[in-house]
Amino acid sequence: MTQTTTEAEHGYTADKEAYLRRLKRIEGQVRGIARMVEEDKYCIDVLTQVSAVNKALHAVSIGLLEEHIAHCVVGAANESQASGDPRAVNEKVQEASAAISRLLR
Amino acid sequence: MTQTTTEAEHGYTADKEAYLRRLKRIEGQVRGIARMVEEDKYCIDVLTQVSAVNKALHAVSIGLLEEHIAHCVVGAANESQASGDPRAVNEKVQEASAAISRLLR
Amino acid sequence: MTQTTTEAEHGYTADKEAYLRRLKRIEGQVRGIARMVEEDKYCIDVLTQVSAVNKALHAVSIGLLEEHIAHCVVGAANESQASGDPRAVNEKVQEASAAISRLLR
Amino acid sequence: MTQTTTEAEHGYTADKEAYLRRLKRIEGQVRGIARMVEEDKYCIDVLTQVSAVNKALHAVSIGLLEEHIAHCVVGAANESQASGDPRAVNEKVQEASAAISRLLR
Repeated sequence: MTQTTTEAEHGYTADKEAYLRRLKRIEGQVRGIARMVEEDKYCIDVLTQVSAVNKALHAVSIGLLEEHIAHCVVGAANESQASGDPRAVNEKVQEASAAISRLLR
Repeated sequence: MTQTTTEAEHGYTADKEAYLRRLKRIEGQVRGIARMVEEDKYCIDVLTQVSAVNKALHAVSIGLLEEHIAHCVVGAANESQASGDPRAVNEKVQEASAAISRLLR
Repeated sequence: MTQTTTEAEHGYTADKEAYLRRLKRIEGQVRGIARMVEEDKYCIDVLTQVSAVNKALHAVSIGLLEEHIAHCVVGAANESQASGDPRAVNEKVQEASAAISRLLR
Repeated sequence: MTQTTTEAEHGYTADKEAYLRRLKRIEGQVRGIARMVEEDKYCIDVLTQVSAVNKALHAVSIGLLEEHIAHCVVGAANESQASGDPRAVNEKVQEASAAISRLLR
């Protein structure tokens, strides 16, 4: 089982390059929406692009959450199991739950 | 750390009565929306009630997800830690992630 | 162009029976979720059903919004056009926008 | 009542600068998220920023939709009223409804 070893190593570290590429693409999509507004494109076409960015961001969120659960929560579960103190895992579960709640708005 | 002992005991079992009360209330809210439609209430007022049901359902979803992570995922993490086989925990993480993805639509 | 003639006649009036059937079905789905909780069904399966209710409610929302726009907003547009006073249509547009905002949360 | 006079003049044209500023800010937020991933920031903190971008995009969507309804739908309503042919307004209402549906996913 993977265990977080340093503060800087998180669940998404292995896929870091993939996340950076996806975020780069999303940044470009947002810039494209600004260009559409600049060029007075039809509002419905602008909205279609906004929906595409929403969708791309959701995919990033799901990926980050899955890796948070798979690494941080599971790592804390093992830590709490070893120490007999459930606080480590409880804290991570609470954090994951709060993050999911913010994403569902 | 709580460990799931039988197939029938899930994370939400402890709060079962609270969940049943909340779902009963949501069922009543949906019935109230039907009554509004029956009585030709103003569409915007109907939509306000639909938003209230959405919100109540989201709160239930977050609760169930949090308990799924706190119990099923953490239980599987301990099991995988003990057995050295990550498949138990990986499966539960995948399930949680897929459920979150369905909730975000 | 349809014009709202009485206070009680809204956009969805023509499809009233269809809305009532859909809401009846949603009410039954919520009752089914309560039954799953009662019988200690697996949390992920409960969440799948919650997602199905979310989806069904979204479909109802979209339908109501579309008919609100097609009838109430358009009716007010014609009224404002005839009277030269934009307040009637502005109010309906604001209401529609606020309702959409609540649905997006 | 405002009437769209040219193809290029949409509802949001009056607020164009405000939309461009908001989109510029969102673009910067997305770049900030990439920087957080680059610097291995904690996944939950990254997710909090993703939620902030979602929220900012929703605000832009609501604004665009409101102006679409206030200008394009209402303009088409007046056109259909004048011509006696409901197709112009029906088309705009359908488009608005489809856009809302995509935003609700």
